[in-house]
This record gives sequence, C-alpha cells and structure tokens, in this order.
Amino acid sequence: MNIRQAPTPALTIDLEIVERNLDRMAARCREHGLGLRPHIKTHKTPEVARMQMDRGAIGLTVAKVGEAEVMAEAGFDDLLLAYPVWGTENLRRLAALAKRKRMLLSLDSAITAHELSRAMAAQDASIGVLVEFDAGLGRCGLEPGPDCVSMAKAVQALPGLRLRGLMTYFGSVWGAEDDRRAEAERVAARLQRALAVFDEARMPLEIVSGGSTPSAPLAASIPGITEIRPGTYVYNDLNTYYQGVCALEDCAARVLTTVVSTAVPGRAIIDAGSKTFSSDPLGSGPKSGHGYVVEAPDAKLIKLNEEHGYLDITGSKHHFRVGDVLTVIPNHVCTCVNMHDEVFPHRGGEAAGSLKVAARGKIR
Amino acid sequence: MNIRQAPTPALTIDLEIVERNLDRMAARCREHGLGLRPHIKTHKTPEVARMQMDRGAIGLTVAKVGEAEVMAEAGFDDLLLAYPVWGTENLRRLAALAKRKRMLLSLDSAITAHELSRAMAAQDASIGVLVEFDAGLGRCGLEPGPDCVSMAKAVQALPGLRLRGLMTYFGSVWGAEDDRRAEAERVAARLQRALAVFDEARMPLEIVSGGSTPSAPLAASIPGITEIRPGTYVYNDLNTYYQGVCALEDCAARVLTTVVSTAVPGRAIIDAGSKTFSSDPLGSGPKSGHGYVVEAPDAKLIKLNEEHGYLDITGSKHHFRVGDVLTVIPNHVCTCVNMHDEVFPHRGGEAAGSLKVAARGKIR
Repeated sequence: MNIRQAPTPALTIDLEIVERNLDRMAARCREHGLGLRPHIKTHKTPEVARMQMDRGAIGLTVAKVGEAEVMAEAGFDDLLLAYPVWGTENLRRLAALAKRKRMLLSLDSAITAHELSRAMAAQDASIGVLVEFDAGLGRCGLEPGPDCVSMAKAVQALPGLRLRGLMTYFGSVWGAEDDRRAEAERVAARLQRALAVFDEARMPLEIVSGGSTPSAPLAASIPGITEIRPGTYVYNDLNTYYQGVCALEDCAARVLTTVVSTAVPGRAIIDAGSKTFSSDPLGSGPKSGHGYVVEAPDAKLIKLNEEHGYLDITGSKHHFRVGDVLTVIPNHVCTCVNMHDEVFPHRGGEAAGSLKVAARGKIR
Repeated sequence: MNIRQAPTPALTIDLEIVERNLDRMAARCREHGLGLRPHIKTHKTPEVARMQMDRGAIGLTVAKVGEAEVMAEAGFDDLLLAYPVWGTENLRRLAALAKRKRMLLSLDSAITAHELSRAMAAQDASIGVLVEFDAGLGRCGLEPGPDCVSMAKAVQALPGLRLRGLMTYFGSVWGAEDDRRAEAERVAARLQRALAVFDEARMPLEIVSGGSTPSAPLAASIPGITEIRPGTYVYNDLNTYYQGVCALEDCAARVLTTVVSTAVPGRAIIDAGSKTFSSDPLGSGPKSGHGYVVEAPDAKLIKLNEEHGYLDITGSKHHFRVGDVLTVIPNHVCTCVNMHDEVFPHRGGEAAGSLKVAARGKIR
C-alpha cells in the first residue's frame, strides 16, 4: 500500500531519511571522537532507539522515569535520565530501575541529591550522578564555578550515588548560523569555567555531557565534552530546517492529512489540528505558521483548533478540493510525535506497518 | 490520601466543582428550553459523560470517529459527530457505529455527503445528517442562505442519509462580555438567514444545533436553536475565566506540579511543561503565560519546554524551594486533558482514585 492511502490524519516516518540522518550524526561523532547518547524524547520508540544503538550510540537519554522504564523494558541499558527527578513514588520507581540497569541522573540541588540517595538506600541500589550546570539557557543547572564542585563533593559523600561527571544542555545555541556560532563560543567559555574548578580541585570527570541538534554541527568547537545528546536529528522538523541545520529533504516525519472542508472562501480546512501537530509555535525562521505544506508551500497553515487546521489558500496556486491528501512538515517534531499513539513508517512511499510510540505521554 | 501527595505532574479534577458546573449548565438549558448535548472533547472520559447524561443531557457530541467509538463502547447512544469525516476507513468505522447506535454527522459538501452515503450503503446502515453553516468563525460550514437548502436537498436524495437539521459552532463568540454580546447578535442574524431559506423552502428542521461555552450565557439571545454543545464548562480554564464566563473557583482541572530546580537566579523550574499543559497559548485576558499558579499568582509561567515549566519568580513574594508542590490552572483545558492518559479526581482534597481518559488522542 502506498502510504498516501493511509487513514488520515497520520504521522508518517520516511525510514530512508531516518537512516540517512542517523548515519550522518553517527559519522560526525566518530570523526570528532564524541560519544553519542541520543535523546529518545523525539521518537519515543524502542525500534528507533535500536537503530541508534546499532549505529554506535553509547547509551540513551530520557527525560522522565516513565521513558526510562519503557526503554529498559525494551532491553536497553546505560540510560541517562537528564532530569532532576523528585517525589517519593517517582524516586522509588527510579531506584527499582537502577537495581537492574546502569542509570545516570543529572541534578543541581543538594536536597535532590539527598532524596535520591535515600531512595537508592531503601532499595540497596546505586546510580551515577552528573552535576548539571547552566551553559546559558537559564533553565536548570548551577552557575559554572565553585558551586559545581561543592555539589559534586556532596554527591560523593552520599550513599548510593556515584559521581560520574558534569552535564549541561546546549539549548541556548539556537537560530541562524551566525547566532548559533556566537552562542557556541559563550557556551564553550562557560564550560571551560566549569572544567577549570574541577581541575583546581583535582577532581577528574569521567563524563562531560552536552549537546542538542542545532548545536551538533558546532560540537567540535566546544572542547571538553565527552558526549552529546541530540534528539531532533532523527526526524528533523521546521525548527531545524529554518536554522539551516537540515534540508527539507531531511525531514522524515510528516503529517498526512486530508482537506475536509472548502466551504468558507479562501480557506481549506484539513483534518489535522493541534491534537495532531501539537500547538508548539515555530521558534525559528518566519516564527509563524503551524507547518509546511509540501504539495502547496504557498498555502499557509495559519491556525489550529484541536481537530481543524486552517489553510489560508488565498495566495496559493494549488486547487484545493475536499478529499485532497496533503503532507505537512511539523514545526516541532518532538511535541508532534508525543500526540501519536502510533506512527506509520514507509520506505520510498511503500507503507511498512506501524510503530507504537511506546514512551508517549510519560510525564512522570 | 490528600491529593497534594499524588506523584507529580498530575492533572487533578475537583469533583465538587465539576458537579456544580454541570448542575449550573443543566439548569440554564432547562430554563431556556434548550437541549444540552455536551461536547466530550474536554473530558474525553466516559465517567464524566455519564454525569452529564444523568443531569439531563439529550446526547453527546464528539469530534472524531475514535471518540464516538469510545463513547459507544461505554454504552452511550445518540452521538453527534460534529465533523465532516472523510476517508474510506474512517467512514467504514462510522458506518459500523451507525449500525448499532443513533448517530448524527455534520457536513458542508456534496462530495462528503456522497461518500458518507456510499459507506452507509455498504453496511446497510443509516445516519442522521446536519447541514453545517458558518455562523462567523470562518472554519467549516456553508454561507447561510440558498446553498444550505441545496445541500439539505442533496442529503435527502441520498440513500442511508436522513436530513435532521442544521448545525453551526458559535466559536466566534469570544472575548470580553461586550465583544461576545455583539458577536452573538451577528450570529443570531446569520442563523435567522439560514432558517429563513428553509422556511421559504417549506423544509422544517428538527434540530438546529449551536453553542460553545463562552456563548452559553447568551444562548437565549440566539433564537431558533434547539440545542447547544458546550464542552469546556465541565472543567473550565483560564480562557473561560478571563472572558468572565466563570470564576477561578469554577476551574475544576488543575495541574499538580513540583518545583524541581531553583539553581538559576529569578527562576523556579516545575516538572510540568508542554507535555503536561499542552502548549496552547492563552487566547483571552492578558494573552500571555501558560497557567495561573494558585499558590503564587505573582509568579509567571512564562515558558514551557516539554518537561519544564519556567516560572519567573522575580516579582513573587512566594519563597520557592525544590520540592514545593504547586497547583496551576491551565490555559486551555481541552488540549491539556488530551495530554493525559489518566486524571486524578478528588473530593475536597481527598484523592478519589484515577479516571482513564479513554478518548484521549483519538485523532481519527
């Protein structure tokens, strides 16, 4: 069956593009001697994680305990939970995982370290810890400097915790290439400050983990990192495209959708809305619109309701009719994938079954 | 267990508020002699639909075949699928439903009517049809006038379809009370135009379906409708609150979340991001921010990543510490509920198990 005959709306995945994207990132990491620990938040799918491991990934990154559980259940080991997990039940589940898998957790507060240690002790488990510093995004992480060493020493003193190194997220490296390049220099300087205090304290760091997809082409210009954690590169999206980090031809995840109404002049309504795309705005390029219509780029997806996408067709040469099948590249593929219980892979347009998004919706 | 001890993030539902909201809308509809056919897209939960039916709802509204299947499976009948369903497989499932349940579908194109008829014929099924007209939103629906009558006659001529009436959505009635009142007058005029052509054609209409939550207080000022289809009123949200359609105390669905990082000055990071709230922007009131922090309204939820909420605490008197549990009212509760496999009801703060959001993610 041709994938365009699938019931719509559906999120389709071009496997040839995925393989190319994975091969390219794996080659880049090998070339620069960097470990690749892909973040599974983009695909949330064990079968795709397997493709990443088969290409030499050193382990996986996850954001919540539930994502770690899905990946552990699927047979993966060496999981970095890049999140300062909190809460008795969440930590109990994490300790249960750490009993049977090699786990790493990032954190930035003494109280989180204490609670983590208590949870590990309760199950006689142990976990590796990365101290998180802020490379410039202003989200989580300590200021690079003496606080990082104090935190690392506190971790070393706590039972069940093994200090493994440092972690940060290069989320501030974003935008056009010049902007990304300039920010990568600032990130590199902050990383050097963090490394310097550990050097002074004579505390060697086994792991220094950074990364993101938009920063990946610049990773070699940020010395000191041992591994990167890109996620989006597996599928890519409009955010990646408009930053110049991929071509449209590298966007593997596309929403197949059908025009369901043309009754209102100047409009074509598609059967995909925010429940299909997510409502994440476009954070790069024109910073407007909700997706790129492959068959009619001159039609603008100007608005989403839950089940309706509003195409402004006043400037389009395409003739829109009810029943037309269209293909739309989403703004942000991670949040888009999270809307779907299953995605529909294909190879050169030939449908190849479905893949369960097994780690979808794992908010805890 | 007190609900605040639940693992976070979690979407909690105050059952006392829900009951009050449902009672109030049911009383309003009785008072004005209007049928109430609640849209289940807000709660997506059969147990809550049951509470609506128990209070006199005449049937349920759903947006996709998958939502209809869940509600049919749960034992409900008389379902209005307020969507111009398209596609061989989607229509096959719809016909299978129509074989065993009273179903209504809205549509606005001849080709959709033809395909629907074909699908019904293939299974020897029949379905009621409402012709959709556009009351002012500019989404789906014919211009009120002769086209509506032509469409209705086309429906009457097709096997398996029974013309039941007209449908529209009052989505353009939005904003501050004056704006909603002025738009309700325009909507009423458009509805009268639609009714007039059917009157001229001597085609009586059994059902004239309209509605939405923000328009519900004005429904009595839109003569000619026989039923309304509000959804949001069951839980309410910030969009409803800022339009003056409910009080904060009427917001039944609140995200329970924990502060997980305070490492960056001026910031508190909570464990709820766009995977918990959805990223729907606020469409009323200040039109900025991602939720209302009940314990600290002076803290601003300025940004969401998938798993992180960024609280700007620079203007807050609240002292934020890692581990603090907060309660946040979401911008848009329908998209928020859709992010959750289960929600956590409580009564006066006492946890009352969990409810599966059985119709979550039913995009087809």
